[in-house]
Amino acid sequence: MLHCRTLSKIHKTILPPILRTFSSAGLPELSQVRYNVKRGNYSELNDKDVTFFESIIGAANTLRDGPDNALQGYNVDFWHSVRGNSKLLLKPGSTQEISEILKYCNQRRLAICPQGGNTGVVGGAVPVYDEIILSLGRLNKILGIDDITGIVACESGVILENLDAKVQEAGFVVPLDLGAKSSCHIGGNISTNAGGLRVIRYGNLHGSVLGVEAVLPNGKILDLMSDFKKDNTGYHLKHLFIGSEGTLGVVTKVAILCPPRSESVHLAFLGLKSFDAVMQTFKNAKRHLGEILSSCEMIDEISLTAAVENMKLKSPIDTYPFYMMIETSGSNAEHDMEKLNNFLQLTMDKGDVVDGTCCGEPSKIQEMWKLREILAPALAKDGHLYTYDISLPLRSFYDIVKVVEKRVGHMAKRVCGFGHLGDLNLHLNITTEEYTAEMYKALEPFVFDYTSQLKGSVSAEHGIGFLKTQYLKHSKSTEAVNMMHDLKNLLDPNAILNPYKVLRTY
Amino acid sequence: MLHCRTLSKIHKTILPPILRTFSSAGLPELSQVRYNVKRGNYSELNDKDVTFFESIIGAANTLRDGPDNALQGYNVDFWHSVRGNSKLLLKPGSTQEISEILKYCNQRRLAICPQGGNTGVVGGAVPVYDEIILSLGRLNKILGIDDITGIVACESGVILENLDAKVQEAGFVVPLDLGAKSSCHIGGNISTNAGGLRVIRYGNLHGSVLGVEAVLPNGKILDLMSDFKKDNTGYHLKHLFIGSEGTLGVVTKVAILCPPRSESVHLAFLGLKSFDAVMQTFKNAKRHLGEILSSCEMIDEISLTAAVENMKLKSPIDTYPFYMMIETSGSNAEHDMEKLNNFLQLTMDKGDVVDGTCCGEPSKIQEMWKLREILAPALAKDGHLYTYDISLPLRSFYDIVKVVEKRVGHMAKRVCGFGHLGDLNLHLNITTEEYTAEMYKALEPFVFDYTSQLKGSVSAEHGIGFLKTQYLKHSKSTEAVNMMHDLKNLLDPNAILNPYKVLRTY
Repeated sequence: MLHCRTLSKIHKTILPPILRTFSSAGLPELSQVRYNVKRGNYSELNDKDVTFFESIIGAANTLRDGPDNALQGYNVDFWHSVRGNSKLLLKPGSTQEISEILKYCNQRRLAICPQGGNTGVVGGAVPVYDEIILSLGRLNKILGIDDITGIVACESGVILENLDAKVQEAGFVVPLDLGAKSSCHIGGNISTNAGGLRVIRYGNLHGSVLGVEAVLPNGKILDLMSDFKKDNTGYHLKHLFIGSEGTLGVVTKVAILCPPRSESVHLAFLGLKSFDAVMQTFKNAKRHLGEILSSCEMIDEISLTAAVENMKLKSPIDTYPFYMMIETSGSNAEHDMEKLNNFLQLTMDKGDVVDGTCCGEPSKIQEMWKLREILAPALAKDGHLYTYDISLPLRSFYDIVKVVEKRVGHMAKRVCGFGHLGDLNLHLNITTEEYTAEMYKALEPFVFDYTSQLKGSVSAEHGIGFLKTQYLKHSKSTEAVNMMHDLKNLLDPNAILNPYKVLRTY
Repeated sequence: MLHCRTLSKIHKTILPPILRTFSSAGLPELSQVRYNVKRGNYSELNDKDVTFFESIIGAANTLRDGPDNALQGYNVDFWHSVRGNSKLLLKPGSTQEISEILKYCNQRRLAICPQGGNTGVVGGAVPVYDEIILSLGRLNKILGIDDITGIVACESGVILENLDAKVQEAGFVVPLDLGAKSSCHIGGNISTNAGGLRVIRYGNLHGSVLGVEAVLPNGKILDLMSDFKKDNTGYHLKHLFIGSEGTLGVVTKVAILCPPRSESVHLAFLGLKSFDAVMQTFKNAKRHLGEILSSCEMIDEISLTAAVENMKLKSPIDTYPFYMMIETSGSNAEHDMEKLNNFLQLTMDKGDVVDGTCCGEPSKIQEMWKLREILAPALAKDGHLYTYDISLPLRSFYDIVKVVEKRVGHMAKRVCGFGHLGDLNLHLNITTEEYTAEMYKALEPFVFDYTSQLKGSVSAEHGIGFLKTQYLKHSKSTEAVNMMHDLKNLLDPNAILNPYKVLRTY
């Protein structure tokens, strides 16, 4: 039987509070060069435009690029995989201001790149050329939490962690948790249909977002907010803005149905000798933990080693080929512990789980989760990170890591995989000291072809953004892509909103 | 302490296997007359058209109206509130056939009314004029159930109860349950974003439907099927077909994520003296039953009396002003019983619950649920049923029943309310011996104005259909309605698909 052990071995780590301060080496090459993109047919920004924007939001909220590279943190993504060349950052403070900005840009045909916490992995929140960056950071008000229904309404620039803290005070949890929570905005989460650690329990955002307010490219404000779980009055338009990555509208407000906060949470960190054992343990977790299972993550040895080496962390258990993190959340600690202990006993008796530790103290749980959340930043510290976020059938879930290791291992520092096993969502990672076109070509389209052959998704939760536009057709039919173009043309005929992203309209 | 009692007092009742055989008095007036609707600018069906359809699907699957009134069951809804005048019913057997039919109709500008189980409450599945009825009943194949993930793929004409039975065999449940399950089609459920009894536990269909295949009005087939929970490749187009009531496309296949079947299910039927006690009991159920709460229904005395009088049923407990049905589903019977008993003890100690019975035997549970599911058909037996499906804030959830009773009680046989309290979704019902314009005018737009003033939804789960088109604006802004029109024009420029429904395009 496993027992809760102290986790003092795990050094306390703190994710960079603002991701843009995290930097490996120098700046990445400009995206327009590295990825050979032609500039869209947009107007060039002039002083008159800036004067107009200043009249709307004030000079203090209008930041121009200059010799001080004031916009560098907004032009480059956290992962240093893309770099734009925007000359202007706007920080509006209200929906109305955004409406006026978009109306103006639409008339002038000035391109816009909406930006939340800039934590995206596919270059969706960073300009490619000189798009005006529209930061949502000042729209950070929580508008209300209903203490009976758990429905929270807030502006889109609220940081996920801050929202969750307020919602927890009222006895609920935001049904979304991910590594970037200390920086990412809820509006960005919704615009990208972010997944994360709790999808297995609470489902995706299309289920839990009850309403949005969005500003359309022509400046019109679309109020689709709702205080109710059930509202079947007409087309469910809000879904157009969930996961369309800021290409159809700018999300300004959201209403989310938050489930009750669990009285009792437990987290087990397990060591396993094979991926077969991982699969068996997953099946048993689903069966024996049932309604209290709230997370089921898989980490391979190489991924954890990166955290140990690059972030000076220690694993809470000895070294094994595979690790699992299994979380339970329930309303009765005694019942939950009994279920968890029975499950752990079973998996150990079967020989699937060979080592492990579990804990129920919130601070310890948080510490242990940091180990999972630090994996991607730890890998990025190797130099350059090529990361792929794919959905795959369980039976062949881990095969791709071995296939890619065989293919590019000789050129790579690490080839590894971790991810949301409970959602069949793998994060495949390859690191090198620096970006090389050779590695890029060896990986793409290979990874997407491989995934597509297994009928998987070439972007499980990260989206298409800028980096995957050419692989959209690996997961979507021609008819579907055509309809996407039709929708884009309908809502944004001048294509001013987040160009070069999702669809190749340029 | 409450104990499980035998439920032999409840006579075994069986819902009509095919709803259209259920009939109160004569046929309702033609919708075009009763609701004063002008025919859209569509072509008239001719023999050449019929010959074409016969060449596609065979004469045996093509049914023409005649002196035998062969189409009567398809022209009239279950509730006898609408009646169309279609002259032709088509029963295609495949997506390809539907594609060819729609392509032809689009070119000929022939209007189409897609029909599933014809169990809708707002006249969405029945023609208004002479639309060709497109029955999905022959698309009834279950294509596969993944025994690990619980993802089921099937054609859209599968009856919900049949789908659930197959899914249960594999150890899962369809995350949707409603009174009409023995007749309604899963495709109709998805087209109307059906709610029902389990939304409190499993959320809405936008969360659990992973993929759809739909035929567009121009005949193009849009394959948006998916085997994965996470797929962020491009716009989430499937939501255009969930809840758009067959006005944007005909759903032909679906993929649904089904949660594991619970090992242990318990149902409590409780008697309460006031709506305040109902509210307190709801709050306590959420708090103390937590993750095992799978249903929380409210029934008032008059509603239950209708079931007793019109369906010869007996209540399992004595008469009280209010009843609640609280269901739990979990993976451990002992744990669940302990939680349920603690909760019941608490509510009785507080004096909120004054009587009750609970059971855990599947057959008994099924019998008890029938009492809830028979309420609307029982009320319809009074003669004519005016039914309203609204979302309201908890604090004023039941007020509208009293307000309406005061307003029209003198003209009504019954004024009563029941519904999905856990989702803040009330079904307000008024019955009379027969339809009268006077009652109709006394109720509409009053009920919708009242709901709108409380910022509720004028259609929580039933949709807009034909009967509520003029009240869409009570819950949707002008901008939202305009965008709905834009989408309709984009996908169905000839407006051939389910005209006179959802949007007033005629």
